[in-house]
Amino acid sequence: MAAVEKFVLEGIIQLIIILAGAKFAGFVFEKLKQPKVLGELFVGLLLGSSVLGLIDINNEIVIFIANLGVIALLFEVGIESRVSELLRTGFSSLLVALIGVILPLLLAMIYGIYFLEFDTVKAFFLGSVLTATSVGLTVRVLQELDKVNSTEGKIILGAAVTDDVLGLILLSILVDIERTGSVVLGNIAMITALALAFLIASVLIGRFLEDKILRVVKMLKVKRTFIVAAFIFALFMSFIAIEIGLAAIVGAFAAGLILESKEHVEKIWEKTHVLTQLFAPVFFVTAGAAVNLESLFNLENIILIVVLTIIACIGKIVSGFGAFREKASKLAIGYGMMPRGEVGLIFAQFGLTAGLVGEAFYSVLVSVIMITTFLAPPLLKAELEKFYGKNKKKSGK
Amino acid sequence: MAAVEKFVLEGIIQLIIILAGAKFAGFVFEKLKQPKVLGELFVGLLLGSSVLGLIDINNEIVIFIANLGVIALLFEVGIESRVSELLRTGFSSLLVALIGVILPLLLAMIYGIYFLEFDTVKAFFLGSVLTATSVGLTVRVLQELDKVNSTEGKIILGAAVTDDVLGLILLSILVDIERTGSVVLGNIAMITALALAFLIASVLIGRFLEDKILRVVKMLKVKRTFIVAAFIFALFMSFIAIEIGLAAIVGAFAAGLILESKEHVEKIWEKTHVLTQLFAPVFFVTAGAAVNLESLFNLENIILIVVLTIIACIGKIVSGFGAFREKASKLAIGYGMMPRGEVGLIFAQFGLTAGLVGEAFYSVLVSVIMITTFLAPPLLKAELEKFYGKNKKKSGK
Repeated sequence: MAAVEKFVLEGIIQLIIILAGAKFAGFVFEKLKQPKVLGELFVGLLLGSSVLGLIDINNEIVIFIANLGVIALLFEVGIESRVSELLRTGFSSLLVALIGVILPLLLAMIYGIYFLEFDTVKAFFLGSVLTATSVGLTVRVLQELDKVNSTEGKIILGAAVTDDVLGLILLSILVDIERTGSVVLGNIAMITALALAFLIASVLIGRFLEDKILRVVKMLKVKRTFIVAAFIFALFMSFIAIEIGLAAIVGAFAAGLILESKEHVEKIWEKTHVLTQLFAPVFFVTAGAAVNLESLFNLENIILIVVLTIIACIGKIVSGFGAFREKASKLAIGYGMMPRGEVGLIFAQFGLTAGLVGEAFYSVLVSVIMITTFLAPPLLKAELEKFYGKNKKKSGK
Repeated sequence: MAAVEKFVLEGIIQLIIILAGAKFAGFVFEKLKQPKVLGELFVGLLLGSSVLGLIDINNEIVIFIANLGVIALLFEVGIESRVSELLRTGFSSLLVALIGVILPLLLAMIYGIYFLEFDTVKAFFLGSVLTATSVGLTVRVLQELDKVNSTEGKIILGAAVTDDVLGLILLSILVDIERTGSVVLGNIAMITALALAFLIASVLIGRFLEDKILRVVKMLKVKRTFIVAAFIFALFMSFIAIEIGLAAIVGAFAAGLILESKEHVEKIWEKTHVLTQLFAPVFFVTAGAAVNLESLFNLENIILIVVLTIIACIGKIVSGFGAFREKASKLAIGYGMMPRGEVGLIFAQFGLTAGLVGEAFYSVLVSVIMITTFLAPPLLKAELEKFYGKNKKKSGK
């Protein structure tokens, strides 16, 4: 059977299992009106070593494909992020985002240091995981209720972009901490400045070199192979980000931001989406497969999950009140910011890969991420219906 | 920098180099009106160990991605192959295909056994490489001259599909020979029967279960993620093919044949094409990178290249006369069948991977493939213009 090397055959088998599992989960969870990413995590859990043992999470090809998936995903998020809109929603979004990042970070760090006896590095990591926001789900709920363009919708979307940027900065700080092994305030300031500078420079380059880039792109456009250039660009920016000490996905996100305002952007998005559809599930299924189910079945870890879930929820619910100047449901905004989804998972996976946490604590974190993601949609829906039901009577709208 | 494991970073760097090289080659070779695949081979040669040494052809991730690219490519070829059309062009196409496969196979085997003192296995491999036909190029030339629907065009396309099937059978025979280490006629008959049965069964299943498959597919269709199902299917069929002892790409091709007549096929093709655009170049660039340039610079190998090129050209040019019943340029048909392109490369790579030939002989084969691919378009163009120029005067058409 040497027509195909053994590792190639193994890679193909792993891909078939993972993708078929993800597809099945997507089907079932869509029927259950639950987010697909939850389904992929559950299927991963089922196929992973905890239950069926069909997925080899240490297979290098699987890990690489998962990484490509995350790069494609963040590239897509970058393409979708409208910098101009972010600047327009302004103050309220910024406040919501900042509270929603700082509050869970601080609460989790305090809990980690004083109750779990974590060192600063581990506590900072714990806090970072809980800061993430994944509004993909929220957007779906808002669309369902036709509320994407409501005040709540705009503030949530604006805050989510800010959150992405803040999250990427936190992740870059973690990369640095992992490398140096300690939390040095000077380093944190430098990494923050570097990440911000990288992103701002990307946006500015995108704005000012727009015409020149377009001309080169048009010249190099060989019969609809634009996606190849776009993908090379995303990989290259990820590489640059890694080289200057930031997280790879900061680069992919920046690449997306640069292309955001360009021609063909719809086409690029559509074609990148093929990659995201195929490869991002590999990340989420393997993230689920890395969970050690057994380690969750003890009182200590169950308490951990409950406390961290409460911190995660409170942090984001309070953040909604950052929009105090707006006539909108602050609770709905808070609920909308609650799901940690894929962003939280990228953090948790980083911690596991870098050895900041063990399998058991990783499993706790994934559980917390799943619970917040699971709780948010019904809470948001109920609150919006209640709030607009009331308002409808008052304003007759 | 442990945010990304070392092998992931290396994989990203290799992908950037390979894809950027392929993109550049595509740009330059399109300007030169030469086929992109030639450009990718040249760039591979340049980036490979012979010259710049930037590509690591033993990197497992690169090899895997190259394999995914070939699977996507043959899946695409399968989707494009209209079985009905193949049956319509009928007898002439079949004869052209058979002569074009048998003649170079026999000539090369005779040359290999009597002049190069090859054993039967190696001689059979040599012959197989020279049987391949890659009409992608030919189609482009025909399009340029608006002759896709001419008699020549139809016969070439029909023969090319037959050739693909014959080629896949030959490759499966090679897989078996490599495994057992000897040429046993009984085995060859069995593998041929197995491969034919696999392909025919695939087509029949596709025809008769059409409605049922469509119903399942529609049921499982989760928000435009049809490409995931299609890709899983291609991987799964490749896996089945490997397991029953055929070449992986036979399965990918069969998967394409099954989907050929289905709804959404345009969409699947378009999305599969994203994968082909991204990953197939990885195969061709690494195929070029595996060439040892130095080994070509000696009289013995130059003679080899010349003789094998002559055999490869004669075999296909003679095959054109298989269309003796048609009022068409037999020479044009022969020239159209000449390029070995990607199919020949898949064969050559197999031989290198399986250890049937060494680096030097592999380099000779790639040279022959490149020369036939390079010669065909200008010859075809000149002949068609000459033939139709004459006919125009006669028939006033």
